[in-house]
Amino acid sequence: MTVTCLLDITPGNSFEGFCLVKEVKLEKTKKGDPYLNVTVAKKHKMVACKLWNNGFRGMSSEEILTFFSAGALMHITGDASEYNGQVQMTITNFRLAENGEVDFSEFIETAPESVDSMEAEIRSYIDEIKIPILHQITFEIFEDNKKLFMNHVAAVKMHHNFKGGLAYHTLSLLRIAKNICDQYGEVVNRSKMYAALTLHDMGKIVEMTRDYTAPEYTLIGQFLGHIQIVNQMIDRKLVAIRTERSVSAEETTVVYELMNIISSHHGPLSNGWGSTQEPITLEAHLCHMIDNIDAKINMISKAHSDMQEGEVQKIWGLGKIYKPNSL
Amino acid sequence: MTVTCLLDITPGNSFEGFCLVKEVKLEKTKKGDPYLNVTVAKKHKMVACKLWNNGFRGMSSEEILTFFSAGALMHITGDASEYNGQVQMTITNFRLAENGEVDFSEFIETAPESVDSMEAEIRSYIDEIKIPILHQITFEIFEDNKKLFMNHVAAVKMHHNFKGGLAYHTLSLLRIAKNICDQYGEVVNRSKMYAALTLHDMGKIVEMTRDYTAPEYTLIGQFLGHIQIVNQMIDRKLVAIRTERSVSAEETTVVYELMNIISSHHGPLSNGWGSTQEPITLEAHLCHMIDNIDAKINMISKAHSDMQEGEVQKIWGLGKIYKPNSL
Amino acid sequence: MTVTCLLDITPGNSFEGFCLVKEVKLEKTKKGDPYLNVTVAKKHKMVACKLWNNGFRGMSSEEILTFFSAGALMHITGDASEYNGQVQMTITNFRLAENGEVDFSEFIETAPESVDSMEAEIRSYIDEIKIPILHQITFEIFEDNKKLFMNHVAAVKMHHNFKGGLAYHTLSLLRIAKNICDQYGEVVNRSKMYAALTLHDMGKIVEMTRDYTAPEYTLIGQFLGHIQIVNQMIDRKLVAIRTERSVSAEETTVVYELMNIISSHHGPLSNGWGSTQEPITLEAHLCHMIDNIDAKINMISKAHSDMQEGEVQKIWGLGKIYKPNSL
Amino acid sequence: MTVTCLLDITPGNSFEGFCLVKEVKLEKTKKGDPYLNVTVAKKHKMVACKLWNNGFRGMSSEEILTFFSAGALMHITGDASEYNGQVQMTITNFRLAENGEVDFSEFIETAPESVDSMEAEIRSYIDEIKIPILHQITFEIFEDNKKLFMNHVAAVKMHHNFKGGLAYHTLSLLRIAKNICDQYGEVVNRSKMYAALTLHDMGKIVEMTRDYTAPEYTLIGQFLGHIQIVNQMIDRKLVAIRTERSVSAEETTVVYELMNIISSHHGPLSNGWGSTQEPITLEAHLCHMIDNIDAKINMISKAHSDMQEGEVQKIWGLGKIYKPNSL
Amino acid sequence: MTVTCLLDITPGNSFEGFCLVKEVKLEKTKKGDPYLNVTVAKKHKMVACKLWNNGFRGMSSEEILTFFSAGALMHITGDASEYNGQVQMTITNFRLAENGEVDFSEFIETAPESVDSMEAEIRSYIDEIKIPILHQITFEIFEDNKKLFMNHVAAVKMHHNFKGGLAYHTLSLLRIAKNICDQYGEVVNRSKMYAALTLHDMGKIVEMTRDYTAPEYTLIGQFLGHIQIVNQMIDRKLVAIRTERSVSAEETTVVYELMNIISSHHGPLSNGWGSTQEPITLEAHLCHMIDNIDAKINMISKAHSDMQEGEVQKIWGLGKIYKPNSL
Amino acid sequence: MTVTCLLDITPGNSFEGFCLVKEVKLEKTKKGDPYLNVTVAKKHKMVACKLWNNGFRGMSSEEILTFFSAGALMHITGDASEYNGQVQMTITNFRLAENGEVDFSEFIETAPESVDSMEAEIRSYIDEIKIPILHQITFEIFEDNKKLFMNHVAAVKMHHNFKGGLAYHTLSLLRIAKNICDQYGEVVNRSKMYAALTLHDMGKIVEMTRDYTAPEYTLIGQFLGHIQIVNQMIDRKLVAIRTERSVSAEETTVVYELMNIISSHHGPLSNGWGSTQEPITLEAHLCHMIDNIDAKINMISKAHSDMQEGEVQKIWGLGKIYKPNSL
Repeated sequence: MTVTCLLDITPGNSFEGFCLVKEVKLEKTKKGDPYLNVTVAKKHKMVACKLWNNGFRGMSSEEILTFFSAGALMHITGDASEYNGQVQMTITNFRLAENGEVDFSEFIETAPESVDSMEAEIRSYIDEIKIPILHQITFEIFEDNKKLFMNHVAAVKMHHNFKGGLAYHTLSLLRIAKNICDQYGEVVNRSKMYAALTLHDMGKIVEMTRDYTAPEYTLIGQFLGHIQIVNQMIDRKLVAIRTERSVSAEETTVVYELMNIISSHHGPLSNGWGSTQEPITLEAHLCHMIDNIDAKINMISKAHSDMQEGEVQKIWGLGKIYKPNSL
Repeated sequence: MTVTCLLDITPGNSFEGFCLVKEVKLEKTKKGDPYLNVTVAKKHKMVACKLWNNGFRGMSSEEILTFFSAGALMHITGDASEYNGQVQMTITNFRLAENGEVDFSEFIETAPESVDSMEAEIRSYIDEIKIPILHQITFEIFEDNKKLFMNHVAAVKMHHNFKGGLAYHTLSLLRIAKNICDQYGEVVNRSKMYAALTLHDMGKIVEMTRDYTAPEYTLIGQFLGHIQIVNQMIDRKLVAIRTERSVSAEETTVVYELMNIISSHHGPLSNGWGSTQEPITLEAHLCHMIDNIDAKINMISKAHSDMQEGEVQKIWGLGKIYKPNSL
Repeated sequence: MTVTCLLDITPGNSFEGFCLVKEVKLEKTKKGDPYLNVTVAKKHKMVACKLWNNGFRGMSSEEILTFFSAGALMHITGDASEYNGQVQMTITNFRLAENGEVDFSEFIETAPESVDSMEAEIRSYIDEIKIPILHQITFEIFEDNKKLFMNHVAAVKMHHNFKGGLAYHTLSLLRIAKNICDQYGEVVNRSKMYAALTLHDMGKIVEMTRDYTAPEYTLIGQFLGHIQIVNQMIDRKLVAIRTERSVSAEETTVVYELMNIISSHHGPLSNGWGSTQEPITLEAHLCHMIDNIDAKINMISKAHSDMQEGEVQKIWGLGKIYKPNSL
Repeated sequence: MTVTCLLDITPGNSFEGFCLVKEVKLEKTKKGDPYLNVTVAKKHKMVACKLWNNGFRGMSSEEILTFFSAGALMHITGDASEYNGQVQMTITNFRLAENGEVDFSEFIETAPESVDSMEAEIRSYIDEIKIPILHQITFEIFEDNKKLFMNHVAAVKMHHNFKGGLAYHTLSLLRIAKNICDQYGEVVNRSKMYAALTLHDMGKIVEMTRDYTAPEYTLIGQFLGHIQIVNQMIDRKLVAIRTERSVSAEETTVVYELMNIISSHHGPLSNGWGSTQEPITLEAHLCHMIDNIDAKINMISKAHSDMQEGEVQKIWGLGKIYKPNSL
Repeated sequence: MTVTCLLDITPGNSFEGFCLVKEVKLEKTKKGDPYLNVTVAKKHKMVACKLWNNGFRGMSSEEILTFFSAGALMHITGDASEYNGQVQMTITNFRLAENGEVDFSEFIETAPESVDSMEAEIRSYIDEIKIPILHQITFEIFEDNKKLFMNHVAAVKMHHNFKGGLAYHTLSLLRIAKNICDQYGEVVNRSKMYAALTLHDMGKIVEMTRDYTAPEYTLIGQFLGHIQIVNQMIDRKLVAIRTERSVSAEETTVVYELMNIISSHHGPLSNGWGSTQEPITLEAHLCHMIDNIDAKINMISKAHSDMQEGEVQKIWGLGKIYKPNSL
Repeated sequence: MTVTCLLDITPGNSFEGFCLVKEVKLEKTKKGDPYLNVTVAKKHKMVACKLWNNGFRGMSSEEILTFFSAGALMHITGDASEYNGQVQMTITNFRLAENGEVDFSEFIETAPESVDSMEAEIRSYIDEIKIPILHQITFEIFEDNKKLFMNHVAAVKMHHNFKGGLAYHTLSLLRIAKNICDQYGEVVNRSKMYAALTLHDMGKIVEMTRDYTAPEYTLIGQFLGHIQIVNQMIDRKLVAIRTERSVSAEETTVVYELMNIISSHHGPLSNGWGSTQEPITLEAHLCHMIDNIDAKINMISKAHSDMQEGEVQKIWGLGKIYKPNSL
């Protein structure tokens, strides 16, 4: 059977259709013949492919790499088999998609909600920040960076590594926080929680490249980490506000308290996960725990999407995970 | 100034009123004279007291201990000073409260919601368990033990160590879980969450004595721990159900899955916090993280109640904690 | 030279004889030709084999897999060479063994003592349990499960992963314990030691499949672990006994003490090796240490069987191990 | 014998002379009589004292505390005995020192070199920074803060907790670094080392109070830590420079590289000592190791100053330490 | 009631009899009066005592210390009360025991078997060492040091800290090893085990002072540790043997293998318990595990001797320990 | 282009020249054809090569291995390509170098300073040891072993794994120590530092084989480790000196103090890096830290030699390392 959508491919099928090239490696067989290892994708579905030398259509390695490059949209023909329990496709024919022939956005993975609705909802949380200086700083940093922020990935791998993943992750934390604030009343300071959660991973727009295909750490990201980057953004805003009006000692304190929540949102220093200071407030502890919940739910549900019901698999960072049967 | 309610006492005051005796120790001065160290309380407020030998009113140590014993309600006169930053009272006069003179319930700390409303709300969560065997097991264990469960403490010290603390902690987790289930949809199994959370600390009614003044670990509690105790309750229910009707393999699996969630609700084995098995489902990971949130919020807000605004203190199990100024 | 017994095979030999198939994987060469990776065995000796496509005798991959399957007894012809310091055999001919042609039991690895003598000796230890309720529980659980228990493996890999390994490991611990009880006198309680050691790994008959070729963890095994499974068995016995006669508080205590020994036989919680409670008795600490001795001796002597005298090798879970020269 | 300089005091002596009050605590005997625990000092020498009630000269506790307060210079008469192996003095008479009667600077501990010579030498290292933007940033931050920096303590306890300790510690690191740069040649970048070491602990002027008697952590110090504080200073300089001239990408990179060295100067995150990012350059690793050398040498030589030759003592943070005999 | 043997003392008794002084501290009351804290003992029984100033019989502190000193045998009169759950005696009269009045050996704790029988039994194990060079080295080191070895303590505190404790501990390990060698046959090398166990703690005769009252670490003990000290003894023997005859390469190897067993008898380096090299043989692993068994049994049974049946106590190095009821 | 020096080889070049064979492995293709994996080197430059069966020139595998063996000097012709980002060469022709045709010393990696100058400088440090017994022991051990010591490697991999690496590493530490001694004055004992550093890794001449191509751990090295080996050397010297003259207690103490510095030069036991005793002197702590500095500088600069400017790579034992741009 021949399928035309990569999402439908299974071992034994032939495939004839469009896909996005995610990764390309030129290899050699033991006999010295060149061939390509190519990963193609549609949305979250990734398929490993081989293009053997006899499929090069007489082109040299250099020429073949002008077709196959990360980010290219291509039309591919191939046969799918199984290798080590994974689908593997041998490519038999290929060409580049022509301009306008297909829509790029149908091939990349994106957040499950629209950018516009997410942005509106995050802004509604910012509106709830009742401490003026926290509201101003959060609002301005969000406005300054929202175009990049709303589309950025939240990780190079692991969880939320897709277009809009950063905004979707941020919004998920705000929603959990809202319910906890409602439940625990004045014990938790809602304004500090919303400011801290909106900004907590904002530094990732500098820490990672804005590439939805294969995001990487930037050099500055490796020098400072996203926590110090966002604290820098906050400090620059504080300095700017001071050029416009006088800032009280109480206001300064609460801005530094915000920086502490962000500094410690990876948990206590002793876990070695990259906090830049110990958490010393209730909101700092809470921010870390909420972040953890959303991350774990996403890692596990992502793992589930590649598993059979009733199966147990070892998942990196989680240990063994079981996917229950539907009841 | 003389105060009559222990909640109002501060260094410099005299006190004349009722209190609950929490702890009594007979000591000797270096010169060999006997005296008493007594802790008295009203609700969450605890005050350390001294009764010097010259206040024994001519009684022997044995006689004096017939007045002062843990759990007694007494009328006390004394002078409050400060010692190491804490209030300390020297007792100058004392008598036992007469029957009916004061209401015991006004002196012990209790959950902030009524037993009846908490019980009704927990039962409403049990009603939402849609997997019949999980519903039956949870319902029956709750009904069998509710009288004890609704009034029990949740810990010997740390958090929720008060009358009704176990039920209040359980209910808090169910409320957090409800919102997370609402937010993440089918990704999280609501029935498993509600069953696991209702039962997760049920073993504490066997693990700790039912004493609101000074709960202690029982011997069986130290042999098995509350996790294995509740798994035993679940297993006994499963055995009992099997004597009444046949139980399918799918049902058995989901009961064991419930036991896994409970077995691992203290997190991965490597943290050494007493899980009896690794978490292998999303609900198992989530149950641990929600438990952690409620525990931390309570530990910190309990610490805050003894702190000044703007102060930083070292809190056992948490490191340094800051209490912010009201804004 | 041609050898007919797999135990005698070395690189350079030809082989013509019977063997047990342990594992089969269908692979493809880079050119796309199918071939088989097969592991064949006799007793503890395992040999990795290749069956290339040109040896398929015209059969398809599907047909070839009807011959080669885990657990099959086959007659094989092949040539042994060396690959990465290990024997590797290229299969040149093959057929299934006919019924009765060879004895299955000559090909699987088994405990070095007979099932009957091991069972008799374990029963003699049970006879020495002088605390009636411990004797009854141990005796009944042993009798209920002995058929499975006497033949089961003790691990999926590591040590004692052979037929009868569980019984042999259990018996070895009882023998060590006997001598220690003799040596230390009343300091160690013999009845508790014998009951705990007889039962300590009984849960493995549920935790692992009863497959001597390639045992695996069951789902229930992964939900609960063998410690909680055996504690469940003990609890069910306790419940059953109570339906027949009254059980004193002292008897109940000693049964829970037994469960504590078993709960903690992997050592303190902080090591993360899967104890379900801290050890709090001398017998609990001792049970863990004796278990460790037998496990380590078996892991090292198993490692020695594949090593040359004077050689040092890295062994998983042990670090470097030296095999001394015979003197 | 009566001594007049606190440095000479030993058990059995009387004392009559001046001293600095470091710490005062009002206590009560078991009988309820007030008395004072006072710590007095001259330079690094600290002596614990008691002022019993019968030495209050008829004054109330409140009056007595107007004499004894941290930071006061007093004239004291007393008798020294030994308690738990330490000198302890009972105060028999006291008065405040009159203005000009003694020189405050003779009583506080200070760095062993003069502020002027240390400042000149640090500035000579800054002159050696050959990367212009690093030179400018280091020079300006040093000039802005030198008055505070040159006199500040380097720690609240542990090592270098004296006036000028921060500058002296910084200078010691620069001297070690100079020799290592000379020895290893171009392998180590001298400009980056000098810039990083000059600034590495500059944040302590904000993190700790400028009190030479009993320095404490500030609230901002606890929110951010000295590493993030100095990175903030650097970033503010970078922003300011950009308002004056254009800064190249290479320059920006080297400034962020500087921030990485400082971020990681407590070593890898996994040690939990408070680095805010992993070290990723040779200079970052080196900066941490040099810091460690000076800290350890100072902790041990400080411990030695209270030990006899040939003695072994347990020292906090170091384990057992031996003080060798002079040879 | 008046008791005359310290072993019989309980709170409420008077005492009149002999005892051994273990520890003496001169203290002062808050009012400045001197008094003595004295620990007296008979065998394993230790009692804390006070000698108040009014019991000094007019003597000065200096004079009183000529009576009370560690190691002195005294005749004491006093009254026993209870303090913090422990017996405490107020001394009312005292004198030094006269020469020959009592037998010193009745007051110190000693091994439960006679020195002669232990020595004979250890020598019988040495006789079983069949590898000549191991036999010679073990025999000679034992003969050289046996007088000291047979009476030495095995620890400054923890387990076997009594006269003959080192020999008794060594013998206990040899007995366990014998049974394990009998059980596992040729898998374990008996000669290496007996040589290693006889010598494993021999270095303690240099590492700790030969004081049965209050043993301490020597300076050399702290420089090298008992493992390196015994390896030095072995090496010196090897050097000496080489001056008398030629030693083969195989013999040298087995001597170094012996040093490896001893070097690693505290377990793998990663536990930080002081092994000087990783264990790389079966005998090395086994030696560590057997050592652990005897140590733990002794620590727990020592803890039991101060506990009531049914009690649970926290024991240093072991966590909570339960002492079961006799059945 | 054809290059004749291995240091110049890059992908795309042909090579025709001499090289040193470091490692040879006979492999088989999936089809069963034999081929060679060969590593050839010049100085620090290593190149992975393939010799396919069709390049065997009709020789059998056995014959081909008489040409290719570790340590052989050969003349090779081949074509360089790139494989996984590394140069890989296919060998097309080969012959053994003839005697005298090339100079072996041009092909092995050696320390960057001459053996003679390093030896003279180390001896000048030994001359500075002012404690006579430390001078004598250090001098004699150095003289006894200098031929081997001056040429030995310092590690089997990691840092300083080249001819003369051990001497060069030792000298580097002495140079760092000299400057620190100059800087800190009498706080650090120069004689102890020089003695300890000269000897600290001397045991490596026994622990590792004297092979500059592929050094390995010896059996004795694995039994004892280089720390215990050098302590043995020191002890043998001490014994020898005692046969010649009497040694005072002070001298003995300082020799054992030297052994403590060496015993602990891998840092505290808790890090598990192989110290044989805790460091208890300032010199012991310092020796460890200086050793660490030289090791880290060498590991990082070695990593840099294979990296591009601006690149970040993960380096074993160090985490991510960045190589900065030249400025």
